[in-house]
Amino acid sequence: MSRNLTLLTDYYQLTMMNGYIENGIEDEIAVFDMFFRQKGQLTYAIAAGHQQAIEYIQNLHFTDEDIEYLRSCKVFSEKFLDYCRNFKFTGDIYAVREGEPVFPMEPILTVRAPLIQAQFVETALLNIINHQTLIATKSSRMNMVAGEGKIVEFGLRRAQGPDAGIYGSRASIIGGCNGTSNVLAAQMFGIKAKGTHSHSWVLSFPSELEAFEAFARVYPDSCLLLVDTYDTLKSGIPNAIKVFKKLRAEGHKPVGIRLDSGDLAYLSKKARVMLDEAGFTDAVIFGGNDIDEYLINSLNAQGAKIDCYGIGTKLITSEDMPSLGGVYKLAAIEKDGKIIPRIKISNSIEKITNPGFKTVYRIFDKKTGMAFADLIALRGEEIGKPLTLTHETERWKSTTLDDYDIRELLVPIFKDGKLVYDIPTLEESAAYCKKQLGLFWDEYKRLVNPHVHKVDLSDGLYALKQSLLHGENR
Amino acid sequence: MSRNLTLLTDYYQLTMMNGYIENGIEDEIAVFDMFFRQKGQLTYAIAAGHQQAIEYIQNLHFTDEDIEYLRSCKVFSEKFLDYCRNFKFTGDIYAVREGEPVFPMEPILTVRAPLIQAQFVETALLNIINHQTLIATKSSRMNMVAGEGKIVEFGLRRAQGPDAGIYGSRASIIGGCNGTSNVLAAQMFGIKAKGTHSHSWVLSFPSELEAFEAFARVYPDSCLLLVDTYDTLKSGIPNAIKVFKKLRAEGHKPVGIRLDSGDLAYLSKKARVMLDEAGFTDAVIFGGNDIDEYLINSLNAQGAKIDCYGIGTKLITSEDMPSLGGVYKLAAIEKDGKIIPRIKISNSIEKITNPGFKTVYRIFDKKTGMAFADLIALRGEEIGKPLTLTHETERWKSTTLDDYDIRELLVPIFKDGKLVYDIPTLEESAAYCKKQLGLFWDEYKRLVNPHVHKVDLSDGLYALKQSLLHGENR
Repeated sequence: MSRNLTLLTDYYQLTMMNGYIENGIEDEIAVFDMFFRQKGQLTYAIAAGHQQAIEYIQNLHFTDEDIEYLRSCKVFSEKFLDYCRNFKFTGDIYAVREGEPVFPMEPILTVRAPLIQAQFVETALLNIINHQTLIATKSSRMNMVAGEGKIVEFGLRRAQGPDAGIYGSRASIIGGCNGTSNVLAAQMFGIKAKGTHSHSWVLSFPSELEAFEAFARVYPDSCLLLVDTYDTLKSGIPNAIKVFKKLRAEGHKPVGIRLDSGDLAYLSKKARVMLDEAGFTDAVIFGGNDIDEYLINSLNAQGAKIDCYGIGTKLITSEDMPSLGGVYKLAAIEKDGKIIPRIKISNSIEKITNPGFKTVYRIFDKKTGMAFADLIALRGEEIGKPLTLTHETERWKSTTLDDYDIRELLVPIFKDGKLVYDIPTLEESAAYCKKQLGLFWDEYKRLVNPHVHKVDLSDGLYALKQSLLHGENR
Repeated sequence: MSRNLTLLTDYYQLTMMNGYIENGIEDEIAVFDMFFRQKGQLTYAIAAGHQQAIEYIQNLHFTDEDIEYLRSCKVFSEKFLDYCRNFKFTGDIYAVREGEPVFPMEPILTVRAPLIQAQFVETALLNIINHQTLIATKSSRMNMVAGEGKIVEFGLRRAQGPDAGIYGSRASIIGGCNGTSNVLAAQMFGIKAKGTHSHSWVLSFPSELEAFEAFARVYPDSCLLLVDTYDTLKSGIPNAIKVFKKLRAEGHKPVGIRLDSGDLAYLSKKARVMLDEAGFTDAVIFGGNDIDEYLINSLNAQGAKIDCYGIGTKLITSEDMPSLGGVYKLAAIEKDGKIIPRIKISNSIEKITNPGFKTVYRIFDKKTGMAFADLIALRGEEIGKPLTLTHETERWKSTTLDDYDIRELLVPIFKDGKLVYDIPTLEESAAYCKKQLGLFWDEYKRLVNPHVHKVDLSDGLYALKQSLLHGENR
């Protein structure tokens, strides 16, 4: 289902492209960085969306219909429309691997391409990567608190349109979800589809008990019953236990029950006792009802007996922070093979961009193997030993490492328009995420007052930025 | 670009469908209502998404590949897979018109169809209508505060995936946006695409002035300049005025400037004075920077001089409430032509459903023509004159109308699987929304402490609900 998303762009990209051609600068090589800024409760993010971003780049082409549409705007030159007719992406793209934990202000994707092309791909790349990174991050936070393999994505009906459901489901798997309710996403990405029945099943039969018995007849070996249609403790669980006993007598093993409303801490503890007393100590309790990482934390603290969480709205929309706010900024123009760094100045320090053609390294403590800091550096700049890391604005905050391990985070995805990256499977991206997050101390990942992972500028980049901030470049 | 979204559903819909067949009840006629509950700052919502919901229903079919996928799950009977092979929707759908202002708890869509079909379409209908209704509502709130025609949708890069951008843009037009930056949405739905240039245009030239001059050469009659790349007041606006003077001397009329960061109240007032003093009293000031309805309100109160708002993240994600939370609940089963009402009981009053096959009326004050209340009634129930409206739980709150106008909100969309609704154009839906909102007093639409529009139950529905609540039906 590979759609042509070529016109999935902001109109001003097209007016600028037309303008670059009119000014004869369309083929100057430009370098753009995508990064996000500190926002809300964000401590780290999980980069995601690579497969869709790659497909977008590979499918880029203007159809005749697209050209006609642009002509009908009565704004674009025939020279530009001719250019569109033969458009393809011929540049380089670097990005962090899918599933990589990333931090504010560091480039997570860099495009180096003719100005007109690099400009054009901005909007769709931001759309795709902002979205999947946002949901992978939210999923990771929930997974961390719930414990490995205990959350399932159930959000499709509350997602912001079909794609938000489909690609949100994909991203949630990278962050640690262990299945989805979304059948199309399951089919497209080889995810395990999960689910049993809803209240309407129960209401479609004359009584709750008859509904449960009917379900158990059809699914004797995968019988998970929703027990809150009428009254969880007085009706739902007793009826479920009746049906489970019958299944057991027939040699089947019931799966468990699902709680979808009410006080999950109280009800799950009561349910656990009732199931255990009936001898169903293996029966799982599946819980869902506006779950997020904070509620899971609270349920854990209350000793709730929930084995698995079905998570809907608050995951699929990242409810408390529904956008990552990633941006894509010009960092350099190459003229006659020479890199001319560019900077966007602002009164807000965090809105000043980092100039130049850069890369990002992750520095690991040699003794523990754990992540110590990230370093944004100019490409080609040597990172020596010992290495002194200094905070960009609070210059007295400085650490020197005599020895360390180092890994470059940005890897080539496209080179001269050709894909040079082995697209990982979704399972591989999820495993990569899990492994890399394991290289950060818990203190950096906790929900409340986390340590802030250091992201510093190399000496070369710091000096360049300062010179541009002090110099004249208007 | 009509996609097959047949598998865009929750897995449990399929396990239930398979189960209905195994229990021989798949063809019982079921009635499901979609409605939303009171949530957050919501006072009214604008129903939207009809075109996509209709296309979804019309395109429903399982491909061979879909059937194979389902078979591979090793859960579904061959009888069910055969059923899927010939699946089409043969039921009735009623809905409020697109652009209709709607309120919590009243059905905005009702499906009456064989149980198996009505169950199946739940997830995708919720996904589509929840999303577009959410964004149309947010757009309407912003439009109301900004004033007619003063907001433009700029959110694609922050939308939750491509569809959220495309259909969010569509919905924002229904709520009152006057254009979009999203070229694909503009092409698909005939919306006016808008935009000029970004910071990277400015940074692609040796200086801001040269960048502005270059832009003005290409777009002498649509020259709108972004003035905040370096320093808005000291550099951006003075450079823009220089270029505008040159354009004027050449017989062109510059459009204006765009402010994209900083204190919009302060900067816009300064900018207005500078432009006016240079004789550009017609030049518009376009503003954007994390705008929402509350910020627009505040800017208005401060006397900011902004002629048009570009609205991104907070509109396209409905940031402070990123899901509507609409639900779809079984209300009745028909057996042998007799309607058996069904109710979902809960300890939370707002989670108890309204039983029966129903419709919704809007009651208008005969003297003023303004909306007075909505009434949920059983189909076929007579609404007499005089009419007494009584609050569902606070029964002492009661009003009697001797005379009134009445309009049925739910209209037939599909009848026996056939489309019987003239799909309005996007323009018509936007105009309908504007007209209908005009029938509500401002007090019901304001942002803070709005009056609550009455949504009451008819006498027949109230009596039916009470009898089910008191009766035994487990």
